[in-house]
Amino acid sequence: MKSFTEYLTFNLPARMAFLNITPQVEEIVRKSGVAEGLVLCNAMHITASVFINDDEPGLHADYKKWLEKLAPFDASPQTYAHNRTGEDNADAHMKRQVMGREVVVAITKGKLDFGPWEQIFYGEFDGRRPKRVLVKVIGE
Amino acid sequence: MKSFTEYLTFNLPARMAFLNITPQVEEIVRKSGVAEGLVLCNAMHITASVFINDDEPGLHADYKKWLEKLAPFDASPQTYAHNRTGEDNADAHMKRQVMGREVVVAITKGKLDFGPWEQIFYGEFDGRRPKRVLVKVIGE
Amino acid sequence: MKSFTEYLTFNLPARMAFLNITPQVEEIVRKSGVAEGLVLCNAMHITASVFINDDEPGLHADYKKWLEKLAPFDASPQTYAHNRTGEDNADAHMKRQVMGREVVVAITKGKLDFGPWEQIFYGEFDGRRPKRVLVKVIGE
Repeated sequence: MKSFTEYLTFNLPARMAFLNITPQVEEIVRKSGVAEGLVLCNAMHITASVFINDDEPGLHADYKKWLEKLAPFDASPQTYAHNRTGEDNADAHMKRQVMGREVVVAITKGKLDFGPWEQIFYGEFDGRRPKRVLVKVIGE
Repeated sequence: MKSFTEYLTFNLPARMAFLNITPQVEEIVRKSGVAEGLVLCNAMHITASVFINDDEPGLHADYKKWLEKLAPFDASPQTYAHNRTGEDNADAHMKRQVMGREVVVAITKGKLDFGPWEQIFYGEFDGRRPKRVLVKVIGE
Repeated sequence: MKSFTEYLTFNLPARMAFLNITPQVEEIVRKSGVAEGLVLCNAMHITASVFINDDEPGLHADYKKWLEKLAPFDASPQTYAHNRTGEDNADAHMKRQVMGREVVVAITKGKLDFGPWEQIFYGEFDGRRPKRVLVKVIGE
């Protein structure tokens, strides 16, 4: 069994943003030399996500509106107990649970085994500082 | 390390529906010959899910009502920017994020290593056309 | 390829509660002897979660309030069809979908390859009875 690990770093200027990281993950899979296996791709920070969906700006605008409705930003410690710690990002911990921490993708014949519209995104919910994504390939 | 890949195709007549696909996944695990390993089972389309829960029709009715409340269907491009593209399924992209894209299940002694009520479901949120699910087994 | 499987049992006295199970998972990874690979950690019950987030009591209080708002407990069969079966836990099946069933974590140099604040939690949404979590390590 082969394994191969890389870390990607992102620093997004907005509080909430989505970035297509499929090209970086494809390159890591290529470098791993794995033809048949799995790739795990996860946010290493708890106010960020890695998820798979469509690369369509309208949809991303809809996601932002929807997540803000499900878990509104509110810096006050009255609304969120977490914000009594000096943080203001309790909402980001919730948004991340809706969108998920990680994806596991099949590698078949050396490529990400994807449907027609699947793309991997880094989802940021408390941006403006560097955060890491782990990519781990295992297989043969 | 062994690996084994199959694709299942589903064409559900309703916009939103859940289908128990555990028997198909069990059969693929059996065919793989893997005794100890993991099986990845994911929707290859971004308005569908694979998830694990209970095979109880009342619960499935509750899920539909609940998802419709969290992310209501609305074809208008005023409500969802994604629907300006000519699509009407922005809500389906949200429902899919709540229910998830994939499951990873342990294989122990040649079987899905499940608790008493765990069953694997294909979740459709924008049906009436064929869509695929990927099942990939790795192990020994 | 090595593989190693263990089952943890938890019996939490509250209906909804979160328990940090990182030390138990670390110990299983150590016992597995796997240096490079993946560990799957999943709830074996469908009203419970395994998820990764911050070990901060204020955040956990916020999660409980938020999940109760997204999917309120209501024992009546009028509100949830699932509760016509004699169960009262339809809400728990929904909360579990928001928080997720499982996590897959990279093992690098014999350790959980985690960001600074990542911790693994067992999430209980219908407690007061024993439930199991599966931990499966694969790798080399």
